[in-house]
Amino acid sequence: MDAVNHQVRLAARPVGLPKPTDWDHTEDAIPQPDDGEVLIAIKYLSLDPAMRGWMNEGRSYVPPVGIGEVMRAGGAGEVIESRHSRFAPGDHVTGVTGVQEYAAISGENLIKVDPDVAPLPVHIGTLGMPGMTAYFGLLEIGRPQPGDTVVVSGAAGAVGGIVGQIAKLKGCQVVGIAGGEAKCSHAVAQLGFDATIDYKSDDVTQSLRQRCPDGIDVYFDNVGGEILDAALANLARGARVVLCGAISQYNATEGMRGPANYMSLLVNRASMTGFLVFDFADRYREAAAEMAQWLAAGKLKTFEDVATGGVQSFPDTLLRLFRGENTGKLVLEVAPA
Amino acid sequence: MDAVNHQVRLAARPVGLPKPTDWDHTEDAIPQPDDGEVLIAIKYLSLDPAMRGWMNEGRSYVPPVGIGEVMRAGGAGEVIESRHSRFAPGDHVTGVTGVQEYAAISGENLIKVDPDVAPLPVHIGTLGMPGMTAYFGLLEIGRPQPGDTVVVSGAAGAVGGIVGQIAKLKGCQVVGIAGGEAKCSHAVAQLGFDATIDYKSDDVTQSLRQRCPDGIDVYFDNVGGEILDAALANLARGARVVLCGAISQYNATEGMRGPANYMSLLVNRASMTGFLVFDFADRYREAAAEMAQWLAAGKLKTFEDVATGGVQSFPDTLLRLFRGENTGKLVLEVAPA
Repeated sequence: MDAVNHQVRLAARPVGLPKPTDWDHTEDAIPQPDDGEVLIAIKYLSLDPAMRGWMNEGRSYVPPVGIGEVMRAGGAGEVIESRHSRFAPGDHVTGVTGVQEYAAISGENLIKVDPDVAPLPVHIGTLGMPGMTAYFGLLEIGRPQPGDTVVVSGAAGAVGGIVGQIAKLKGCQVVGIAGGEAKCSHAVAQLGFDATIDYKSDDVTQSLRQRCPDGIDVYFDNVGGEILDAALANLARGARVVLCGAISQYNATEGMRGPANYMSLLVNRASMTGFLVFDFADRYREAAAEMAQWLAAGKLKTFEDVATGGVQSFPDTLLRLFRGENTGKLVLEVAPA
Repeated sequence: MDAVNHQVRLAARPVGLPKPTDWDHTEDAIPQPDDGEVLIAIKYLSLDPAMRGWMNEGRSYVPPVGIGEVMRAGGAGEVIESRHSRFAPGDHVTGVTGVQEYAAISGENLIKVDPDVAPLPVHIGTLGMPGMTAYFGLLEIGRPQPGDTVVVSGAAGAVGGIVGQIAKLKGCQVVGIAGGEAKCSHAVAQLGFDATIDYKSDDVTQSLRQRCPDGIDVYFDNVGGEILDAALANLARGARVVLCGAISQYNATEGMRGPANYMSLLVNRASMTGFLVFDFADRYREAAAEMAQWLAAGKLKTFEDVATGGVQSFPDTLLRLFRGENTGKLVLEVAPA
């Protein structure tokens, strides 16, 4: 192989939305896999809101991406060369590949996936981290009961769209919050939500009051900010608020906005609980199998928003996520599958 | 009886700290008990942070006190006349008496207390609502395990002082947060806390980091505001934040301050849960019996800050609470026991 490995590296810690100068576009030799490693040709990269946090200084649940390092990203690809007994050339895998075209990764950190079950983008979406996040966050933290009113923000996104569909499968009344008429229609018409609220044109607090007359039993929050406050103002007694993300705040330059209505948790004997999907890693296989069955049976629908342009277009594609321009899971095509 | 019943009524809804003009001082005839009611001569009134919320418009967990109504308050007194089979003149009782000298109250809403077990002020403090709040909030919501690090704000107050002592009884490391050296010394020397942080002179975030090197397992919050944010910044994985109150915010005129560090709940897989002590009413008797045993055995200490001056001094005494001037349970003596 005389091809090079195009990469996108973090050049500077962004203030607010990442700028072009926060990135370095580099070329490197295609890596040689060490013993136990697998060389992958990356086909698709996952674009996730959490990426913004990884770019900040300071330890969170994972260390930050270092300046000069290849940007961290989940990806799906094809095995080209294997020095791990469980993988062979031609296998398809997912893992933390980074924003590049090739990666040599320990086989212990790769998951083999079956492209006959679903196309590769689905394996880094509904059957990957976002799907696992929706599944465990809703079922383990939200604990919805049949008849409960479940509200989810980011309703047309990779996680929110799955949360709402699983809640419907569990017999709940589901209200989504999304930005713009197209996303709201998508959630109702394509995903089967009972109703949606357009935060760009509706008063979310008032609309929640109308749509959830008995209050919200489970609020799955992907966005934070004013929408979290609106949900807190409408909790039912004993409500569970699931903290999954706060995309509205990740690029804030004046610090996070805290939920001013948090004392609604007291009045309503409610809880707000954070979780990280990694803590459920030993159950991914079981959950993905159930989700794949739902997909096959048509009970669960999956939507991917596949951007093209290769790794060079990663910086621009990431901004689409923070501008809320994607419907379904945002994926960047690195090379056609 | 030709004595009158002095009362304090809510005259206006306060903006910020209650002003003298927010109150009416009235005189009324001593009420006649109806069938099933008990006439009480009130000896002590309980002064509670929650009172500030009861003065605001808008439904919370209880309706607001109406303009012109006698201010709601818990109290302890002696039965003068009984038209309820369970009570007789000379009995001592606690209940929601209001800020007045006499009250006729349904016997169903009164608790008979034994002044030989503890003086009356203790029955509206450590053995009353504040004690029950500490007991159930810590044990049922905080769920401390032996060896856990428990942090409590308002550490020298009616609830916080009991929370810390119970946490010590359960084998925890206990750090209190209080305002001023006197309160901090009180919590360590009198209540047996392991350490205290003086929020008036210390950097609370930094001090918590030093005092809780493995993070906070249980944070019992009575105050909200910056101190809640400091605690959130120092959570251990799986921490439980118990929302009991937010006294720093009750008189805010520019809206509540939300906890900007709330996403620490996500990073640490932690929860923040509200509760109301009333939900544990069917277990008060059991809890009060255990607390009384601890008191008798010297395992639990109780401190009351008894203000004098009768019901007329209620408005000024209430301000002492919001200025943080009390150590232990703030009680107003209405008439000597």
